[in-house]
Amino acid sequence: MTTTIPKSEPTSPVQALLERLHDRHAADLTGEVASYIPELASADPNWFGISLVTADGSVYEVGDTRREFTIQSISKPLTYALALEALGEEGVRAHVDVEPSGEAFNSITLQPGTGIPQNPMVNAGAIATTSLIKPSGAEQPIDRILNEYSAFAGRSLEVDESVFQSENSTGHRNRAIAYLLKNANVLDDEVEDIVETYFRQCSTLVDCRDLAIMAATLASTGVNPVTRERVLKEETVRSVLSVMASCGMYDAAGDWLYTVGLPAKSGVAGGIIAVLPGQLGIAVYSPPLDVHGNSVRGVKVCEELSNELRLHVMSPSRRPPPPVKASRTCIDARSRHLRTTSEQAVLNEHGSEVRVIELQGAILFAAGELVTRKILEDFADIRYEVLDFTAVREIDPVVVPIISHLVDAAEAAGGQMVFSDTDRHPKFMAATDALREAEGRSKVMTFPDLDLALEWCEEQLIGRYGEEKSHEEISIADHAAVEGMSPQEIEKLSACLERREYPAGTRIYEQVGHVDEMLLVVKGDINIEATGRDGNRHRIATFSEGMTLGEVAMMSGSMRLGTSEAANDVVAWVFSRDDLEALRDSDPAMICTFLENLMKLISHRVGHLSRSVMG
Amino acid sequence: MTTTIPKSEPTSPVQALLERLHDRHAADLTGEVASYIPELASADPNWFGISLVTADGSVYEVGDTRREFTIQSISKPLTYALALEALGEEGVRAHVDVEPSGEAFNSITLQPGTGIPQNPMVNAGAIATTSLIKPSGAEQPIDRILNEYSAFAGRSLEVDESVFQSENSTGHRNRAIAYLLKNANVLDDEVEDIVETYFRQCSTLVDCRDLAIMAATLASTGVNPVTRERVLKEETVRSVLSVMASCGMYDAAGDWLYTVGLPAKSGVAGGIIAVLPGQLGIAVYSPPLDVHGNSVRGVKVCEELSNELRLHVMSPSRRPPPPVKASRTCIDARSRHLRTTSEQAVLNEHGSEVRVIELQGAILFAAGELVTRKILEDFADIRYEVLDFTAVREIDPVVVPIISHLVDAAEAAGGQMVFSDTDRHPKFMAATDALREAEGRSKVMTFPDLDLALEWCEEQLIGRYGEEKSHEEISIADHAAVEGMSPQEIEKLSACLERREYPAGTRIYEQVGHVDEMLLVVKGDINIEATGRDGNRHRIATFSEGMTLGEVAMMSGSMRLGTSEAANDVVAWVFSRDDLEALRDSDPAMICTFLENLMKLISHRVGHLSRSVMG
Repeated sequence: MTTTIPKSEPTSPVQALLERLHDRHAADLTGEVASYIPELASADPNWFGISLVTADGSVYEVGDTRREFTIQSISKPLTYALALEALGEEGVRAHVDVEPSGEAFNSITLQPGTGIPQNPMVNAGAIATTSLIKPSGAEQPIDRILNEYSAFAGRSLEVDESVFQSENSTGHRNRAIAYLLKNANVLDDEVEDIVETYFRQCSTLVDCRDLAIMAATLASTGVNPVTRERVLKEETVRSVLSVMASCGMYDAAGDWLYTVGLPAKSGVAGGIIAVLPGQLGIAVYSPPLDVHGNSVRGVKVCEELSNELRLHVMSPSRRPPPPVKASRTCIDARSRHLRTTSEQAVLNEHGSEVRVIELQGAILFAAGELVTRKILEDFADIRYEVLDFTAVREIDPVVVPIISHLVDAAEAAGGQMVFSDTDRHPKFMAATDALREAEGRSKVMTFPDLDLALEWCEEQLIGRYGEEKSHEEISIADHAAVEGMSPQEIEKLSACLERREYPAGTRIYEQVGHVDEMLLVVKGDINIEATGRDGNRHRIATFSEGMTLGEVAMMSGSMRLGTSEAANDVVAWVFSRDDLEALRDSDPAMICTFLENLMKLISHRVGHLSRSVMG
Repeated sequence: MTTTIPKSEPTSPVQALLERLHDRHAADLTGEVASYIPELASADPNWFGISLVTADGSVYEVGDTRREFTIQSISKPLTYALALEALGEEGVRAHVDVEPSGEAFNSITLQPGTGIPQNPMVNAGAIATTSLIKPSGAEQPIDRILNEYSAFAGRSLEVDESVFQSENSTGHRNRAIAYLLKNANVLDDEVEDIVETYFRQCSTLVDCRDLAIMAATLASTGVNPVTRERVLKEETVRSVLSVMASCGMYDAAGDWLYTVGLPAKSGVAGGIIAVLPGQLGIAVYSPPLDVHGNSVRGVKVCEELSNELRLHVMSPSRRPPPPVKASRTCIDARSRHLRTTSEQAVLNEHGSEVRVIELQGAILFAAGELVTRKILEDFADIRYEVLDFTAVREIDPVVVPIISHLVDAAEAAGGQMVFSDTDRHPKFMAATDALREAEGRSKVMTFPDLDLALEWCEEQLIGRYGEEKSHEEISIADHAAVEGMSPQEIEKLSACLERREYPAGTRIYEQVGHVDEMLLVVKGDINIEATGRDGNRHRIATFSEGMTLGEVAMMSGSMRLGTSEAANDVVAWVFSRDDLEALRDSDPAMICTFLENLMKLISHRVGHLSRSVMG
C-alpha cells in the first residue's frame, strides 16, 4: 500500500504552498505520541500529511495523506450531526449541552442544574451523543455511524478491530464517565453497549485526505463536494460548526478561535480538521500531541494556513458585495423595441419616471434592507420601477416580507413595481406570491427578462403621454423608405412591390440563408431574435410599421442578425432585389433617394444598438 | 428630554420588523433589575429599546433608544480594543488570556500556569485590560477611554458621577479581584487608580442607539458608519470579535454562539450588543436580567432577530459568489477595432487561442485557488489569456503569489497571460510586480480595459497568422466604397474628393454638430469614443483604411456615435454632401453603386455592434 504521495513538480500554487508548509514543519517532532494503547504508541512521529479540499471538490494533498489512522475524537462532531438529524435540536439538547468547558477532553464535570454533559466535544458529551443513535431495522448504531462517516469521506470506512479491542479493554475512565452518565439518567440504554459503540466509532480508520473531504463537506453546506451526495441538512451543519467553534479544541478553544478562527476538531491519533464555511476544509495528520491533546504540527499548520490565507471567520474582509449593481432610468435604459420618432420624444421627456434597479449577488437580510431603503429614499418622481434579478445568485427567504413591503410602499407612493428575470428564483417568487395572497394583496407583475419589462414600462409612458397609436395599416406613401419621392416615383415603386400578410407567430426570415428580398413594414411588429452566449434566445430588436426589414442582408449578402417573427399580425410590402436592380437601371435617381432613406433608417438602428453597447 | 422615539407609520419593512419585535416583548417583565447600587435599582423594568445600524450607516430604532444608562460590561470589548491598539496582541496576551471561563462575570479564577485572567470579558480580565491603558501626555487613562468610546458612538460621552460613586463605594468584590491581580503581578500600577478608572469606564452614559452604532462600527471593519471615522484597525476588530464570540456572554457563551451565532456583549444595566461582521450592529436596552446577568428581553430579541433574519455567522448561505463571471474565447469576444475581411477570417479561424476570463466579486484565497485551477485545467490550446478585473471588488493580498504563479505556469505551458482593468487595484498590482521583480521575473502585461487587451491579442493572432500589413496608403481604386465602379466612374468620383491628412491625435469630428462631409479612409486608424454611463470615455470602434467615416451622420443628419480621433497618422479623402448631390443628379447610377457599397460597410459595423449587444 502506498501511503505517501510522492512530491512532484508543483502543478498549482496551492499545491506549492502546502508543500512549503510541509517542508517547514517536517523536522519538528515536538510533542508526545499518545501512548495509552500500543496501537497508538507505535505511530512514527515523522508521519505528516496535509490535505486541503475546496467546497467545490478540488483535492490537494502532500505527505502521508493516504496512511490510515483512527479517527478518535474527530468522530464526535460527526456523530453529533447524526444525532441532530435523528432527534432534532431539542431532543439532543436534553442529553448534552453546548457550553465550552474550559476543561480537558476527559473532563468528568456535568452542567450544574441540568446534570448533563457540558458539550458533545468532551468525552462525556460524546458518549451521551453516541447513546442517542438507536438501532434502525437490521442496522445497529455502529452501522448507522459508519454509513454516515463513509458518506462524509466518500468511501467505505471500517473499524480497526485491534484498536477497538485495546480501547475497550483499557478505557476505564470513559467507562466511569458512562456509568456516571447512567447514574445521572443521561443514558437510556445499556452502558456496555453504548461504550462499545463509542469505542468502535473512535476506532474508525481514516486517512488525512478522508478527513479533509469530511471538513469540506461541512464547508459545503453538508454536500460532499467530491461525491456530490448531500450528507447533512444545512441547519445541522450550522449547529455542528457552532459547537466546533466554541468547544472543538477543548481547553484551548478560545485561543484557537482567536488565532485560527476556524471551527475545528482534533483526535488523539494526530488528526485535526478545520472548516472555513462555504469555502474549504483542511486536515492535518501528525501523531505528536501537545498538552491539550492536539497535534502539534496540526495546530501550527492550521495557524499558518489561517494567517497566510486570511481564513479567520471574523476576518473583516468577508463582507458581501453591494446588492445594487446599477440604477438607471429609461433615459439610459431602453428596451430593444425600436421606437418611432414621436415615441422616442415621449421616452426622452418622461423616461426618468421609469427606473431600473439591477440587483446582484446573494440578497440576504442586510442587502434586502439596503435595497429597500435606497429605492424608497428617492422614489418621489418614479412611476414605474423595475427590480431586475438577472445577476442575483440567491435570495434568502427572510427577504420575502421586506421586498413585498417594498412593493406596497412603492404603490402607496403612487408608483408601480415590476420584477424581471425571476425565473431562477421560483421559491422566492412562490413565497412572495403566497405572502401577498395571504395578506389580500395582488401578485407582483413579473417579466421573463429586463428587455420585456422595459418594453412594458415604455408602453405605459407612451400610452400615458404619447399620441394614440392607430394600429392601422399605413399606406406606402407614408412609409419612411419613400420620403422625398414624388407621387409618380412612389407609384412606380409601388407597382414593383408585392403585399404580404404574416399572421402573428409566423417566422419571416431565418438567420442564415440568403433571401433576395426586403420588406417595407406597414402594419404590426416584428421581433428579431438570436441565441446569446448563455444559450438562450434573446430579442435583438422589434421593428414596427414604417420600418424596413432585411435590406442590409439583401444588399450585402451578409448573415442576418437573427431570425425574424411576426409579434402580431403583420403586413409588409416585398421589394425583390431583381426589381430593385431593374429600377436602378431605369430610374437611378429614385433608387438613390430610396437608398438614402434606407441609410437613415439604418442609422436609427445603429444608434439604438450603440446605446446598448455603451450600456 | 425625549427618551422614547414615538411610533410612526412604518416607513420601511426593517422598522416595521423592529416594531413587531418590540410589541411582542414589551409586556415581558421577566427577570430582575440589578439592585446592587441604588442608581441601577431605580430603573423601570418597562424601559425597552431596540436599535439596528447597518454597516453603511442606516440607523433604525424603536422604543427607549434615547434614554441614557451606564455602559457597564459592554465597555470591556471597547477597552480591550484600545489596549490591543496600544500594546499589540502579545503585549495584551501577557496580561489577559482569551479562554472562555464557563464561569460567571465576577469569576475570580485565574488561568492555571500563567496566573493571568481567563479572558477580558470577565471582570478580572477587564480590570487587567483597563490597567494597560496608560496616561498619555495630559490625558489620563479615563480620558483616553472616553475619547475612544465617543469615537465609537459618534458623539461625546460622559461618566455618570453618581453611578461611579456608588460603584466605587460598594465594589468590594472587584477591589478584591484587583488586589488578587496585583498579588499575581498582573497589574503594574496602583490598584486604587486602576479600579477607579475601571468603575468610571463602566459608568459611561450611553443610549441604545449609541450602542448599536458601536456594534456597527465593529461590523464595519472598525469604521464608524455614521461619522465615517476609522476608530480601530481591521486586525483589532477581528481579535475583539473573536473574544466576544467565545467569551462575550459569560457562562452562556456556548449557548449564545449556538443559537444566536453573533459576537456579543451585555451589561448589567440592561444593555446588549451583537455584531454581524460586515453587515450590521444590534443593540437592545431592557433592565431586567436573567441569572447570567444578561438582559432577558435583550437575549430574546437577539435570538429572534438572528433566527428571523438568518444572521448566524455559521449560516451556510454566507458563501461567496463564483469568482469566474464568464469565460470566452476570441471567437465570441472581440475588441471594438473593426477588422478587414481577411483579418476577420484569421480571428474566426484562430480566435479560440485567445481566452478571456472575467473575474468578479472579492478574490480571496479560495477564489484565487479556483480561478488558477480552472485556467490551468484546459490551458493546452490557449496562446493568449486575458484575466479581466472589471467586476472585481477586492483582491486579498494572499492571492498575489497564487496569481503570479499562474502567470508563470501559463508561460511554461507556452502561453502568455495579460491583465485588463486592474486600475482600481493598485496595491494588488504593486505587490504582484514587487514579488515578480524579487523573483527575477518580468512584470505582468496590463491594459486599462478589456477592449484594449482584446485588441492586442487580436493583433498578435493577425500578426502570426495573417498577411503582413503594409501600413501604406491605399489607392482610392482599392477602397471598398468604389467596389463595382468602372475606372471612368472612379476617376469621376476621385475628381470630387479632397485629400486630407490627420496627424496622430487629431480630433476629426465631434459627437454633436452636423458636418456635411464624409471620409474615405485610405491610411491609418480612427478611434470612435463616447462617454459611457460610468462617466468614463470608452471606445465604440476603431475604423481603418478601406472603411468610411461619417456617412450615416451626413446622410441622416443624426448625431454621431461619438467623437473621432486619429489613432495614428491618418489619410482620408473627403466627400462633401454637395458633391454627392451634384454627382447623384449627373450620374445617379454611379451614386447608387456608391450607396450600396456604403450599406455593405455599415452592415459590417452593425454586425460588430450587435455581437456586443448579444454579449
